[in-house]
Amino acid sequence: MSNCIIAQSGGPTSVINASVVGLINSNKELKAFDKVYGGLNGIEGILNKNIINLSSIDENQIYNFRYTPSSGLGSCRYKLQDLNNSSDEYEKLMQILKEYDITSFFYVGGNDSMDTIAKLSAYAKDNNIDITFIGIPKTIDNDLMFTDHTPGFGSAAKFITTSVLETYLDASVYINNGIFILETMGRDTGWLAASACISKIDNKPVADFIYLPETIFDKDKFINDVKERFEKQNKVYIVVSEGIKNKDGRFVSEFNCVSNDKFGHAQLGGVGQCLRELILKEGFTTRVKALELGILQRCAMHCSSDRDLEESYKVGYLALKYALENETGKMVAIKRELGSEYKASYFLVDADKIANNVRYFPTEWINDEGNFVTEEALSYFEPLIEGIPTLNFENNLPKYKVFNN
Amino acid sequence: MSNCIIAQSGGPTSVINASVVGLINSNKELKAFDKVYGGLNGIEGILNKNIINLSSIDENQIYNFRYTPSSGLGSCRYKLQDLNNSSDEYEKLMQILKEYDITSFFYVGGNDSMDTIAKLSAYAKDNNIDITFIGIPKTIDNDLMFTDHTPGFGSAAKFITTSVLETYLDASVYINNGIFILETMGRDTGWLAASACISKIDNKPVADFIYLPETIFDKDKFINDVKERFEKQNKVYIVVSEGIKNKDGRFVSEFNCVSNDKFGHAQLGGVGQCLRELILKEGFTTRVKALELGILQRCAMHCSSDRDLEESYKVGYLALKYALENETGKMVAIKRELGSEYKASYFLVDADKIANNVRYFPTEWINDEGNFVTEEALSYFEPLIEGIPTLNFENNLPKYKVFNN
Repeated sequence: MSNCIIAQSGGPTSVINASVVGLINSNKELKAFDKVYGGLNGIEGILNKNIINLSSIDENQIYNFRYTPSSGLGSCRYKLQDLNNSSDEYEKLMQILKEYDITSFFYVGGNDSMDTIAKLSAYAKDNNIDITFIGIPKTIDNDLMFTDHTPGFGSAAKFITTSVLETYLDASVYINNGIFILETMGRDTGWLAASACISKIDNKPVADFIYLPETIFDKDKFINDVKERFEKQNKVYIVVSEGIKNKDGRFVSEFNCVSNDKFGHAQLGGVGQCLRELILKEGFTTRVKALELGILQRCAMHCSSDRDLEESYKVGYLALKYALENETGKMVAIKRELGSEYKASYFLVDADKIANNVRYFPTEWINDEGNFVTEEALSYFEPLIEGIPTLNFENNLPKYKVFNN
Repeated sequence: MSNCIIAQSGGPTSVINASVVGLINSNKELKAFDKVYGGLNGIEGILNKNIINLSSIDENQIYNFRYTPSSGLGSCRYKLQDLNNSSDEYEKLMQILKEYDITSFFYVGGNDSMDTIAKLSAYAKDNNIDITFIGIPKTIDNDLMFTDHTPGFGSAAKFITTSVLETYLDASVYINNGIFILETMGRDTGWLAASACISKIDNKPVADFIYLPETIFDKDKFINDVKERFEKQNKVYIVVSEGIKNKDGRFVSEFNCVSNDKFGHAQLGGVGQCLRELILKEGFTTRVKALELGILQRCAMHCSSDRDLEESYKVGYLALKYALENETGKMVAIKRELGSEYKASYFLVDADKIANNVRYFPTEWINDEGNFVTEEALSYFEPLIEGIPTLNFENNLPKYKVFNN
């Protein structure tokens, strides 16, 4: 029997290791490959033969690994050279795979990783190399085409929506409250920020405004919105995506929303800080706080979605099955079935259709004012944060296991 | 029968409402008072008669309130005037308490709130007013004198230590990693930052360095430490308390660790950003990230310590018993019993000894290098984060209930 290899690439998520475990367990069940190898630090590590045997690791460690956030096999941001420039890397990689008797290669990643899958599978086909290449999706940004959502997104959304509830309460305790701004990740898309619409107390959303990159950010409209709401309720809670842009298509975080501090210096920071400066400049309140969730939102396994974990496991599990059917150059995608109960099915999509493409938050799910999202968005998000996983604990903290250290 | 009132003051914690519920349930059990009133927004609200009847609220809402972070009765930062200046507020307050037939007043708070308890109880004694005043401790900073620890601290430490584990993993995925700096709260004391010593993977602390306000921050030593560790292991994880100071006693976040950005402007921010700038200026790596946990650490009920919740409940429960024994002008404190198993007992301490005092992290628990803490610190912290509470959920998010909105 031959072997297979799995590796991880790009920015980590909370649930990326569940996909690896899905594949390991799928192989245990189907006995398809002799060994499942793990490539450490993606393509970059494999090119240096940093390869371990995942099939020999005991069940207990595998369980902890499954529920460990961040790429436990390590990651890389490594883009293969264009074949027209040089085929050296391709040849070297195929050589190494052959050396380890590997006939299937699995890559857990986002757009760039699917570019790698597309290139490698095309190269193998063109050179009659009998290795299949399957992509397994992951990204908290939820910005991959064709798939209903991406593994990793639901858990990030769960941490964001939980933190929105909790920070809203914290920001509401005084008689004279202020304005609170929460900044989420998401790059050019608003999926993560938009998920904050789920956070409700007494059945009412706690966020007053949600700003997404998919609509133009209008500074004057923003100030009017916030001022009006502040006068009405004496507090305002704002969620903003890091990637919002003005009408010229420039990131708000880089345009001129800079105020002078007491030394006459510019204040720089993320977009949350930038909106804070804009509000302070208006002078109607001095109580404005901005919080950037930063990497917490992509590694908070302690507040993950069990559905997301299960689906991450499943895309890994199915990737192996698809490889057995001799599929190559494709990514496993998720389809949401019609019906009142949430149900997912899985299918394959060409990796080159995913690579270098971005799926934006639907503009029809943004309200006319451009400052909140619709009920359709709410229905889309709600099932994705379902369930709480059972983690192992050691000394009252989650017991995590990684293989890249 | 007469009534009693409870209110909350100062910065919120995750578990501050558990103390209120402890008191409500204590009264149900002991039938000491006819009604337990809640003062909304502390003294400030009570002076405006913003008072609700907590005894009439159903069990289900009380359960959700118990497990809701942040002051669910609202809070204030209101310091009573000095009696020598004016007794107007004192008279007005006593008037209102009498109007509601209140004979015991409970205040959940930190140093400033204990100042209020001390002043009010002294005033009542001096004027033969038959109302008792008991303080119930809370603060994430853990900086109250005489008590082994403060309710609220354990849960903040649990969120910090969990986040340290998770962000460490996130910051370790590449072959070329960088330096990660996590900034905690704690004001002038290092308790919160020091708790990060608990966070271990494979039985080894993940934090390389922990910097506390209780030792002088030496910039050159810091740079040497970080550079050396970076050269050795290609990544460094640093935890820093917001309140670290240099040898002149000035906050590091305000002294001259400011670099020039590309426009020649100063970069300002918290102490984490400041340390980041210091490292970047040395030029040995460009990969330096700083994350400020901000208010998340004081409201993350979803990652709280069940022991902390139980103890918060208990100090509220006992406060009522002590009032029945006619105690006044005192705060309920926690004592850690000797023995290998963690066990707490409770006692009273004069509120004026707590007010305007600060309990620092013991310098004998800091290593000689001034960049980490000792095993004694570890043993102190570990029991305080024990256990996971059972929260109610609604639509897959915690169901929170507050009374101040």
